[in-house]
Amino acid sequence: MRAYGELTREELLVIKQQVAASYEKARGKGLQLDISRGKPSKTQLDLAEGMLTAISSNEDCVDMDGLDCRNYGGSIGIPEARRLMGDMMAVSMDQVVVCGNASLTIMFDTVSRSFTHGVLGNTPWSKLNKVKFLCPVPGYDRHFGITEYFGVEMINVPMFTAGPDMDLLEKLVTEDESIKGIWCVPKYSNPQGISYSKETVRRLALLKPAAKDFRIFWDNAYCIHHLYEEEEKQDRILNIIEECDKAGSPDMVYEFVSTSKVSFAGGGISAVASSKANLEEIKRHMNYQIISHDKTNQLRHVKFFRDLKGVKAHMMKHAAIMRPKFERVVSVLEKELGGLGIGSWTMPKGGYFISFDALPGCARAIVAKAKEAGLVMTGAGATYPYRKDPEDSNIRIAPSFPTLEELEVAADIFVLSVKLVSLDKLLKNGFN
Amino acid sequence: MRAYGELTREELLVIKQQVAASYEKARGKGLQLDISRGKPSKTQLDLAEGMLTAISSNEDCVDMDGLDCRNYGGSIGIPEARRLMGDMMAVSMDQVVVCGNASLTIMFDTVSRSFTHGVLGNTPWSKLNKVKFLCPVPGYDRHFGITEYFGVEMINVPMFTAGPDMDLLEKLVTEDESIKGIWCVPKYSNPQGISYSKETVRRLALLKPAAKDFRIFWDNAYCIHHLYEEEEKQDRILNIIEECDKAGSPDMVYEFVSTSKVSFAGGGISAVASSKANLEEIKRHMNYQIISHDKTNQLRHVKFFRDLKGVKAHMMKHAAIMRPKFERVVSVLEKELGGLGIGSWTMPKGGYFISFDALPGCARAIVAKAKEAGLVMTGAGATYPYRKDPEDSNIRIAPSFPTLEELEVAADIFVLSVKLVSLDKLLKNGFN
Repeated sequence: MRAYGELTREELLVIKQQVAASYEKARGKGLQLDISRGKPSKTQLDLAEGMLTAISSNEDCVDMDGLDCRNYGGSIGIPEARRLMGDMMAVSMDQVVVCGNASLTIMFDTVSRSFTHGVLGNTPWSKLNKVKFLCPVPGYDRHFGITEYFGVEMINVPMFTAGPDMDLLEKLVTEDESIKGIWCVPKYSNPQGISYSKETVRRLALLKPAAKDFRIFWDNAYCIHHLYEEEEKQDRILNIIEECDKAGSPDMVYEFVSTSKVSFAGGGISAVASSKANLEEIKRHMNYQIISHDKTNQLRHVKFFRDLKGVKAHMMKHAAIMRPKFERVVSVLEKELGGLGIGSWTMPKGGYFISFDALPGCARAIVAKAKEAGLVMTGAGATYPYRKDPEDSNIRIAPSFPTLEELEVAADIFVLSVKLVSLDKLLKNGFN
Repeated sequence: MRAYGELTREELLVIKQQVAASYEKARGKGLQLDISRGKPSKTQLDLAEGMLTAISSNEDCVDMDGLDCRNYGGSIGIPEARRLMGDMMAVSMDQVVVCGNASLTIMFDTVSRSFTHGVLGNTPWSKLNKVKFLCPVPGYDRHFGITEYFGVEMINVPMFTAGPDMDLLEKLVTEDESIKGIWCVPKYSNPQGISYSKETVRRLALLKPAAKDFRIFWDNAYCIHHLYEEEEKQDRILNIIEECDKAGSPDMVYEFVSTSKVSFAGGGISAVASSKANLEEIKRHMNYQIISHDKTNQLRHVKFFRDLKGVKAHMMKHAAIMRPKFERVVSVLEKELGGLGIGSWTMPKGGYFISFDALPGCARAIVAKAKEAGLVMTGAGATYPYRKDPEDSNIRIAPSFPTLEELEVAADIFVLSVKLVSLDKLLKNGFN
């Protein structure tokens, strides 16, 4: 397969005719496919059917301390749920507060609290002229959404294969007191599926930020979301809580997890782990915001999964459903785009996304082209703050929701769209 | 029975000796009773056992629009839950957003959002020098807790038998632009069990506040929490949403409800009703804060209760448990304190509390005295902002949690404590 860039104008025109014909044929089918969001499929959700009835009688509703989970009380979560979520993060249950059904809400509330009340006695961010966050890019659109909503200035930091550009990051954090935080998805990152190297995690923990209230927002969303059962095919990352502790900066990090992609995306439980001082601040806030989160659902989770071993076994059932989907998409990409020089992509070992980088200036047009043929993808630019991908190159592929058959069709439409837009670009821009 | 105030010093000393002896006897029993919080009893929680298994298979998890409640999506709540919660407030489902397990959280987040983002385009409260709230007193401690946490200056407005002092309230709201809200529990109020009269609700809806972003926080916590089945024994209040609409001020009110005291105190669902403009603002905020609340629990509620009729029937089972408790406490108060002139109390027709007013300067001492004998009551002062009851007079009694037998013992200790402290006061202060 010769790269498009090496072909003559005439050769490209011939290819374009073939590709356009295939695209029109696909478009004619009036398909409706969606690979835009990281939603679990019905088959995955069905795996947790037993959780629905894990507490089924009045006598089932008591936690290990004898607290009636149906009543008020237990604001930081029931002990067995704190242990389970702590085990997912490899931290002690004393360092964990279990919350409602969305870790996104804990992150949002943490930012909100920093604005209204400040962080550990520091000036509330609402009283500052400027608050900035570092955003490894490409990244998770809902993270960027929170900081945008609060008027935080977001600074792009490029992602490399071992994590964010640490040289740049260290320089910025050390020099600029208005930089108050960083969004991280350290394992099987959204959208690239990258896991931070040991060195990256250590350097993050060793940061000496100019701002005393600088915080690492460690969204460990995919901590147990492997695609492969073999240990050597599973990514491992260092424990940031431990590393920050060792580095003498235990307050610098909040870690977030949830079971949204373990049990139910809309009915899971979430948790935050952090230092004693940070947790005290979180608890104080929660004491005004809520009497207790839904402890019946916390208990339902523990009764169903039992322990970390149970969760891990459950995740292997997810992997059996997810793995073929990832592999199918990547195999279509390799077969259809391999060697053409018009795009590159990742093959993650876990998480929920495949990241595709098109020729610069092509992402928006490719997503539009796919949409015309009935395939909804994540909006181009969504993986960047302010929805502005400076290269207009990155596209997030979320293979989880469709069936394998639908996914194959979707992948075909996608590669046709990539080819068409890339051909147009090459034909317009001239050649060597 | 002659009032204590009419007795001679010698007569009082004789009574004191008798009361002190009874008190010491009770204290000697080493009791441990708690009537401090409005917690449902186990018997009440047991009534909703069927809800635990109301959705029990994968096929059960779909809402009326075909949305899989286990997955993401449906951020404003599933339609059938919006209808049910709307029916509880007698508003259309279009005016309702269903949230998580605590209406307190919706209130907190509403105040928080007003601070960070302002209300419908007005200056964020965090940018103002002074923000004030009106607090009908006595009132709900957790309301006052929220505004205190945000540094809001709270102004007491006395409660009369028909609701807050409307003359004072109208004057303050009209004159002072820094007054941004008022906390109301309009039906079976916490702690007095007072329901606002038609005139009170109409005058509230007709308010012309100096502040454009003044809002009524209408916590209709006890909207269907009657103690009696007979309609003539049930309080009715006007629909504030309708009244504000008629008055041309649809944006002036947020109404909150929950099923915390219908299904499970720690595992219910909550909702907010408001105008189109306010709901748009709430939805925009939620769009960043959460992908969706726990829709499986929303569905569980609708499957179990079916409709408003089902909820009302269920509440009559609660009433059958609660009514004797209220009546028992009031009967002890009447029998032991009636005519003594050392306290007055309410006998509400619904809600969760009985409010007791002791002689000025006695509440704190009475609560301490009760505690010495093993009875935990709501802290004196808790029903006032900053925990400061200017008269040191009001005590909240929460009869729901203990059994009838425990409650009888608790009431006995309480009246002994009231008598002892009142006698001391009278003996110290001299007589007519």
